[in-house]
Amino acid sequence: MNIPKTNPSPLGIFDSGLGGLTVVRSIARSLPGEPMVYFGDTARVPYGNKSETTVTRLSLEALRFLEPFGIKMLVVACNSASAVALDALESHASIPVLGVVEAGARRALETTRNGRVGIIGTRATVASQCYERAIAQQRPEVQAFSNPCPLFVPLVEEGWGNHPTTRVIATEYLEPLIQQDVDTLILGCTHYPLLSGLIGEIMGERVTLIDSGDAVAIEVRKSLVGYGLLAPETAAPERRFFVSDQAEKFHQEGQRFLGNEFLGSVEAVDQSMWHDSVLRKE
Amino acid sequence: MNIPKTNPSPLGIFDSGLGGLTVVRSIARSLPGEPMVYFGDTARVPYGNKSETTVTRLSLEALRFLEPFGIKMLVVACNSASAVALDALESHASIPVLGVVEAGARRALETTRNGRVGIIGTRATVASQCYERAIAQQRPEVQAFSNPCPLFVPLVEEGWGNHPTTRVIATEYLEPLIQQDVDTLILGCTHYPLLSGLIGEIMGERVTLIDSGDAVAIEVRKSLVGYGLLAPETAAPERRFFVSDQAEKFHQEGQRFLGNEFLGSVEAVDQSMWHDSVLRKE
Repeated sequence: MNIPKTNPSPLGIFDSGLGGLTVVRSIARSLPGEPMVYFGDTARVPYGNKSETTVTRLSLEALRFLEPFGIKMLVVACNSASAVALDALESHASIPVLGVVEAGARRALETTRNGRVGIIGTRATVASQCYERAIAQQRPEVQAFSNPCPLFVPLVEEGWGNHPTTRVIATEYLEPLIQQDVDTLILGCTHYPLLSGLIGEIMGERVTLIDSGDAVAIEVRKSLVGYGLLAPETAAPERRFFVSDQAEKFHQEGQRFLGNEFLGSVEAVDQSMWHDSVLRKE
Repeated sequence: MNIPKTNPSPLGIFDSGLGGLTVVRSIARSLPGEPMVYFGDTARVPYGNKSETTVTRLSLEALRFLEPFGIKMLVVACNSASAVALDALESHASIPVLGVVEAGARRALETTRNGRVGIIGTRATVASQCYERAIAQQRPEVQAFSNPCPLFVPLVEEGWGNHPTTRVIATEYLEPLIQQDVDTLILGCTHYPLLSGLIGEIMGERVTLIDSGDAVAIEVRKSLVGYGLLAPETAAPERRFFVSDQAEKFHQEGQRFLGNEFLGSVEAVDQSMWHDSVLRKE
């Protein structure tokens, strides 16, 4: 009899803040038995307006925080971190590292029929051209078109998803991609799944939306199966949530991002190691 | 003959990022001969979504960065930092510390005729009720009414100041304050002076807008004269700008906030002291 290998260690999931909870939601739906440890770097959120050097440094700090939990895989839920820090994380980690960008790009390539893929994200993600690079590496003949939607994150965080203004802004952001006749649109930001109803309506039904969280969840499942790392079945796997600031606010607002998945308690990370840091000029 | 005392040391000005440049602009107009050293903490911007503990820690780091320049006074341009960290800064600094909140509140009290003052700011500034407290301490009979305008900062940063959507959003934000019949409105965020034309138009001409930067500039001038700390007259006083991340972006976008004042070069602060910081859980 062939007994499959299992591994009860948790998945490590890292994001700059709240948004990565949409990725947790996707993974929890796809892998209901997996324990997880989440770290949201709410003391330094957002990453989108920080430099590559800074985002890489913060990402390595997140890895160092999550490793002692014995994580069996690191999922980088943050698009900004996936875009710039994946190589650094892979070279420092002794476990597999998966990012939303590679996963989202692969899923878009499996989906497009006309070879025209749209990408939306924060200004930083779009400027990094990370999705374009991932697409070009795999299928250089596919054409990618991108447009930043920088007001989507504040609109989602304000709970203005159904506000008439959001429709006006979204129409303005999406119009250039409709003009380009894309048949697939990558939601390149963890907040955007909360606007997917509106975005789908504006884009029209012949355009398929790619939720990068869903895409990475599929790859996480494949990897866990492939490596024999799936957790043994349990009714209620442990899920722990850590943030570097404002645990209470995260707890209040997180449920909206998690959908039907249970958030449970949120723990704060000690900041004492920063107290004696001193800014020095060059 | 009574020769006035002078002091050639620079003013230290601190903000979480770009916005404080509107305060530099106000001070430079009021005190064209003063040298200044500015620190924008762009590696950790924004402060409005961080806890009191975190904002205080970051503010003390900024003080420690600016002190070696021999600053003769510290101006806290950031509303979030003024709201929560002013006492900590005063107790650690050996120089006078002035914040935009106290200054803006005092100016509003000098301006109101009907005793009804409006306050707008980020969600964090409004929730802190810092302006209300400052007003109540001085003139408890004055009534204060506030409304957060969380989308104003991203709209300004996107350069959407003249976009029709911004007028729709601003009208929605300001309507409750018009209903309260305020005759004075405090712009409790360094970004808002860039929307003052639109805000003034919506509020109507009987409402006086208080730019906290202008208000603190008046107090800086008074304090410098009072302490005999005005700089000796020079044609071109030195002005240095430091940021903790993305100096180039700050340089590109800063001029819009500074108006006619010259930004000059922007220097990056070394982040090496953060490289070995390790997140620890409690």
